[in-house]
Amino acid sequence: MRVILFDLDGVLYQGEQLLPGAVDVLAWVRAQGIPHLFLTNTSSRPRSAIVAKLAAMGITITADEVLTPAAAAAAWAARAGVEPLALFVAAATREEFTGLARLADDAETGAAAVVVGDLGAGWDFATLNRAFRLLMDGEPQLVALGMTRYWRAEDGLRLDTGPMVSALSYASGREPLVLGKPAPAFFEAALAKLGVAAEQAVMIGDDIIGDVQGAQRAGLRGVLVRTGKFQPADLERGVVPDGILDSIAELPDWWERTGGEAGGSA
Amino acid sequence: MRVILFDLDGVLYQGEQLLPGAVDVLAWVRAQGIPHLFLTNTSSRPRSAIVAKLAAMGITITADEVLTPAAAAAAWAARAGVEPLALFVAAATREEFTGLARLADDAETGAAAVVVGDLGAGWDFATLNRAFRLLMDGEPQLVALGMTRYWRAEDGLRLDTGPMVSALSYASGREPLVLGKPAPAFFEAALAKLGVAAEQAVMIGDDIIGDVQGAQRAGLRGVLVRTGKFQPADLERGVVPDGILDSIAELPDWWERTGGEAGGSA
Repeated sequence: MRVILFDLDGVLYQGEQLLPGAVDVLAWVRAQGIPHLFLTNTSSRPRSAIVAKLAAMGITITADEVLTPAAAAAAWAARAGVEPLALFVAAATREEFTGLARLADDAETGAAAVVVGDLGAGWDFATLNRAFRLLMDGEPQLVALGMTRYWRAEDGLRLDTGPMVSALSYASGREPLVLGKPAPAFFEAALAKLGVAAEQAVMIGDDIIGDVQGAQRAGLRGVLVRTGKFQPADLERGVVPDGILDSIAELPDWWERTGGEAGGSA
Repeated sequence: MRVILFDLDGVLYQGEQLLPGAVDVLAWVRAQGIPHLFLTNTSSRPRSAIVAKLAAMGITITADEVLTPAAAAAAWAARAGVEPLALFVAAATREEFTGLARLADDAETGAAAVVVGDLGAGWDFATLNRAFRLLMDGEPQLVALGMTRYWRAEDGLRLDTGPMVSALSYASGREPLVLGKPAPAFFEAALAKLGVAAEQAVMIGDDIIGDVQGAQRAGLRGVLVRTGKFQPADLERGVVPDGILDSIAELPDWWERTGGEAGGSA
């Protein structure tokens, strides 16, 4: 192994609190010169907000070290010349799509792609139905900014992007292009950015499906941490992680035990 | 064959208008003493409203002759002793669940079953999320009052029950018990109510998938009428109906030709 892909929420921090070992592990990664990226399915915030959030907790990273579904979607649309886009993404995420042609936010026809992210409580019936009507007009691509099932808010579990994409896909009969864990295309985008093959990479996350199974299906190793959304029953879901850590603090030991290489020796 | 299952909309009537033969065929069924049920996927109205609608068009039936997904769900819950129920159904449909223990409409825990119907614009984020949280507490059964994708409202297409069930199933990982055509469980509920085996029953409908294929997959015969939503392209979808009628008016001839028995001889 030569590179590490980190999930953020539930691995480095939870809520506004760093998790044990987060600062030390990032210092270790940098000291060892191990190439890395932070892969997050967050579709409610731009990379700049993620960088700012980590900075406020005492961790310095750059936007270029972060890969989000929105950043990957914008790159796809620009590369494929797909326009106009109908954006169903959080207001703050719209900055990732700067420079791309978009439909007005009340349009019900004319989209070349319908981009679905985490609108949270913004998903009222009229909004979901507008996305559906757009999908039934012509043959726009349904683009999913991840297929995350839910996240743990302070007041309890909350539906994330995946269920809304599932609803729209079922209703319209269209298969989504998924940019986000656990879709292979998202891991492949990360590998390409780091210039390595799948077998040279490990993904560390708290989601047995999104992080661990997703990485494994794309040919990477997948390591689970017992923090964040982890629940013991996750280990009975038919996925065998390549490693299980009580927290990210155990990563350096695991890396050395399992033959990870420092960047300098690659 | 000994019993007949009728679809309603598009078979006996369309909009507010009776279709040709509807009155005569129902008179024939009764004169012959052929046991029958009316099977409809409507999840926004109780059986009493369906009975009233038919009465207004000049056809008299009783609620007990009608099987809706809600009625089938209530029968299932009563039979299996499943309670309390969390109901996500149209206000008018709630009467089908009279006598069964229900959760309060703001409860987020404690459901033995989460029953999902067509709430229309009532599906705001908080409501969908509450259904999800209930599904994540314990192991309640997700019950779908049909899996209809959408319907055509006056102002355009509208999401129906299916997409919401799809969202909740995806988010919670729970498979729905689907009570509504074309799910086998719904046809089986009808057979149980009439006390016959699948091969003794024929389903008459205008939906090549929901009515004809659904019935055939449950072991019944499926007959298609060329009224309602029927389109010639329906015959190119890989389903071969056991009979094709220009309208319900041709049913008595078909029944006699194919060896249907009168109730009196059974």
